[in-house]
Amino acid sequence: MTTALTVETDPAQLCCEPSSQPVLNAVDAQESARVLKALSDPNRLRLLSIVKAGDGGEACVCDLTEPLDLGQPTVSHHLKILVDAGLLEREKRGTWAYYSLVPGALEAASARILGL
Amino acid sequence: MTTALTVETDPAQLCCEPSSQPVLNAVDAQESARVLKALSDPNRLRLLSIVKAGDGGEACVCDLTEPLDLGQPTVSHHLKILVDAGLLEREKRGTWAYYSLVPGALEAASARILGL
Repeated sequence: MTTALTVETDPAQLCCEPSSQPVLNAVDAQESARVLKALSDPNRLRLLSIVKAGDGGEACVCDLTEPLDLGQPTVSHHLKILVDAGLLEREKRGTWAYYSLVPGALEAASARILGL
Repeated sequence: MTTALTVETDPAQLCCEPSSQPVLNAVDAQESARVLKALSDPNRLRLLSIVKAGDGGEACVCDLTEPLDLGQPTVSHHLKILVDAGLLEREKRGTWAYYSLVPGALEAASARILGL
């Protein structure tokens, strides 16, 4: 009886109807978080901004180390994360790799936030 | 002489003009990364979606634990991160805390991506 009384007066029972389910399902939430995580680093944001502003919407990897004052391995690490997240694409031409934005990728990432 | 020749033929010197500076400066990049980091977790995205869909654009904290099947301390931890990032605001009314979206915050976060 004491236990039953405790449950009946538990404040959690007096609050309000819980929402049935989150609007965003677990799978979509994982995918959105994956893309947004790639964007959640200041150096990666700056790399994207350089690529976006580059001639023809691309930048040579040789252009990406000096402005950020980072070492080549660190820049390569960040670029790989951006490629893996589907934000940048990489093309090797001769000695150098060139990076460009995946068309529509930033818009899609932005829409993941607005569409919550 | 040998050293000078090596520098002159270093492929890094033959590539292209480096961009002068990133379009996104370091301070703005830090601030954008801070907000996007708060958004880069699937549970936090789902919490935001529940709050956004709630009656009157708000949700009682008592509504936020059950749908995600997370413990109260974990939910509180995620909610604090969202409040600290300026995405949610918290109002205590009686027994319960109510969370609502900070007006314009998701739009501003989205614009940080589009504006890169």
